[in-house]
Amino acid sequence: MQEPDLDLARILFEKLQQISSDGMGITRDTYGSGEQKAHDLIERLALEHGLEVELDDALNLYVTLPGRDRTAARVMTGSHLDSVSVGGNYDGAVGVVAGMSVLVGWRKTGFTPPADTTLMVIRAEESCWFPISYIGSKAAFGQLPKPALDVVRADTGRSLSDHLSDLGGHPERIAQRIAWLDPAKIACFIEVHIEQGPVLIEAGEPVGLVTGIRGSFRYRNAHAIGQYTHSGATPRRLRRDAVLGVARLVSAMSEEWARLEAEGNDLTVTFGRFETDPERADFSKVSGAVDFCIDVRSSDPNTLAEMECVLKNKISSIAAEQGIEFHLGVRTSSKPALMEKALRAAISTQAADLGFTPQEIPSGAGHDSSVFANEGVPTAMIFLRNANGSHNPDESIEFEDFVFASKVLARVCALPANEYSRNLGVDPL
Amino acid sequence: MQEPDLDLARILFEKLQQISSDGMGITRDTYGSGEQKAHDLIERLALEHGLEVELDDALNLYVTLPGRDRTAARVMTGSHLDSVSVGGNYDGAVGVVAGMSVLVGWRKTGFTPPADTTLMVIRAEESCWFPISYIGSKAAFGQLPKPALDVVRADTGRSLSDHLSDLGGHPERIAQRIAWLDPAKIACFIEVHIEQGPVLIEAGEPVGLVTGIRGSFRYRNAHAIGQYTHSGATPRRLRRDAVLGVARLVSAMSEEWARLEAEGNDLTVTFGRFETDPERADFSKVSGAVDFCIDVRSSDPNTLAEMECVLKNKISSIAAEQGIEFHLGVRTSSKPALMEKALRAAISTQAADLGFTPQEIPSGAGHDSSVFANEGVPTAMIFLRNANGSHNPDESIEFEDFVFASKVLARVCALPANEYSRNLGVDPL
Repeated sequence: MQEPDLDLARILFEKLQQISSDGMGITRDTYGSGEQKAHDLIERLALEHGLEVELDDALNLYVTLPGRDRTAARVMTGSHLDSVSVGGNYDGAVGVVAGMSVLVGWRKTGFTPPADTTLMVIRAEESCWFPISYIGSKAAFGQLPKPALDVVRADTGRSLSDHLSDLGGHPERIAQRIAWLDPAKIACFIEVHIEQGPVLIEAGEPVGLVTGIRGSFRYRNAHAIGQYTHSGATPRRLRRDAVLGVARLVSAMSEEWARLEAEGNDLTVTFGRFETDPERADFSKVSGAVDFCIDVRSSDPNTLAEMECVLKNKISSIAAEQGIEFHLGVRTSSKPALMEKALRAAISTQAADLGFTPQEIPSGAGHDSSVFANEGVPTAMIFLRNANGSHNPDESIEFEDFVFASKVLARVCALPANEYSRNLGVDPL
Repeated sequence: MQEPDLDLARILFEKLQQISSDGMGITRDTYGSGEQKAHDLIERLALEHGLEVELDDALNLYVTLPGRDRTAARVMTGSHLDSVSVGGNYDGAVGVVAGMSVLVGWRKTGFTPPADTTLMVIRAEESCWFPISYIGSKAAFGQLPKPALDVVRADTGRSLSDHLSDLGGHPERIAQRIAWLDPAKIACFIEVHIEQGPVLIEAGEPVGLVTGIRGSFRYRNAHAIGQYTHSGATPRRLRRDAVLGVARLVSAMSEEWARLEAEGNDLTVTFGRFETDPERADFSKVSGAVDFCIDVRSSDPNTLAEMECVLKNKISSIAAEQGIEFHLGVRTSSKPALMEKALRAAISTQAADLGFTPQEIPSGAGHDSSVFANEGVPTAMIFLRNANGSHNPDESIEFEDFVFASKVLARVCALPANEYSRNLGVDPL
């Protein structure tokens, strides 16, 4: 028997809800009391069940059930416990609860896996607190850039380094980029997570198997500058209309998206903010300024490069035609990460054995799994369908979907690593 | 000699500037101390020069030089003295100063015009204080709707009726729609005003002759409702993107404008506000809401009707395609007003005599002249070029342009009315 402990899972979801409730939803602030209480809960429970517990310099928590061969590359699963402000109970937490239910289930039934099996409870995944992606997993691999430690949490006014020190972490070691994890010693990393979009709900499928995590480029603070002039008295040819300029850009980029999608490319294009100046804009004025943002994501670096080129071309031509200026501001980006084919195949086989072959789905949102994948660790993600999107109090899962995902996770973690891991020099299935 | 008094005009512009300065620009608040000080200045000056002075129930000021035939329909000129907050010294004031310089010039040189010639210093043209168009001129014709008297000035919290009573006006008579002016007894109305757009500046022409005042329809508080979803995790076909929906509407309406303009129609289309919700919009979310406004103007009621039909059609198709809802909110509108052809011809002839034939230009902004025109009074407007748009401290005129316009005004006001007025049953030129 290698079943997960599902009673424990139920209790854990309830306790997490209780200790994180903010009245409206749940809040587990990164390197604050919210995240810490959740980490403490898991650590206590792990110790109660005789599991090994470690903390790294960034205070990522590792819960390990020793395997038959303690020198073999370890099998890892995990996710994060922090949340956005007034978020839901499941984004991140499902992956931690699934891992705990597997390890505790195995411990209770006396099952010993082939290799050490570790649940990593990852810190600081939600970049709303510190505007940096993947702080916990990057630090674990010695990859967090040093300046990130000086970044300040807007609501506390204190730096990441300060927050880490308060809780007993070691920012000075992170600054030296000392790695805790060695990719060569990890057989695989599997993350269970809620889907943050509506694809599985719409398809009526309980779980999905992630093909890759989309990379992105972003301009979070772009501006268009035109000229405020009288709406009735300024002819078309003399206008420098910032609203029309950005509206044309939004429309044109949407058409390019449709074109690239029709050609079979994976892509999303989003202008989430579009704001005239509340102080100066008026129904009787052509608008002289628009603030906006652009978010473009794809699993394919070539598609990202093509869209960035399209964006620049559209901006040049619209700027010239409308007599406006575009200032894109700071660019941020992330690399797409491919999920490991052999590991996906192993998950799919185990799921099919349990009665359901999961559909393949790209992840549009970023996840710590992309750090593992880009470090060369064979990585996979299992998505649970989720009715109401993520980052809000209405996140919602069906417990039986969670049960199914946990059972699949248990089965795959119990496989001999040579059945999926290229790290071990074995041909994939 | 029937020359305007240009020294007086210089002094008046300076005095108006002095008494209305707010540090940044000038502010002459409607039915407040700003407008009142300016009215007092003109009234005092008129009395000093022995001109007749009257006030109507709305406190419009009438300054009259008696004519040879006091029973003949009077010749009228005029404009307003109120301004927006932190506005410029010329919007409105040029028409009043031009009228005063003509009447005082005539008085000084002993010229007696054929008919009574009246400068009307009109109240309350700027609808930023009380959100109602043409309060002063409508009240003078007994056309101000009664509920307008209860409208409150946002910055004082007091009603139009209160403000009028404070200054000695008669709101109760306005409520009864008692008219002060009889259109049948007005030979013509001529308003000198700055152009509020850049057309004359761009063309390098000192003055323009207005063909008509554009009418409009407006939706000042329109909304598009979509759905907030994850930018990376929501596929194109499942999005309900309010930003994309409104952006497509803006782009489509601009294309329709270009099409109608190419067919020779007079039109402006402006989306002056386009605002996602600052509390909820984010670079990583498809936007679920946009607030915006639409302002469409044309000299031709048929063009307005066609564009409103186009707007409704575009909204229906975009709403269906993007899965969003549009709520246009309250509609307001104004009728186009045509300037009198014979009067325009008379102005053009006099201007040509002085060495320059003014180009014809539509007025995109609304003016009290549209009330006179829609009452059946032969009406015309002379525009002065203005470098920096209106409603800001940088409004700017060339004094010699003003001199030219005042001289033309003086010549036309001195003409026998049967040279232009259809009111007198005479065929136009």
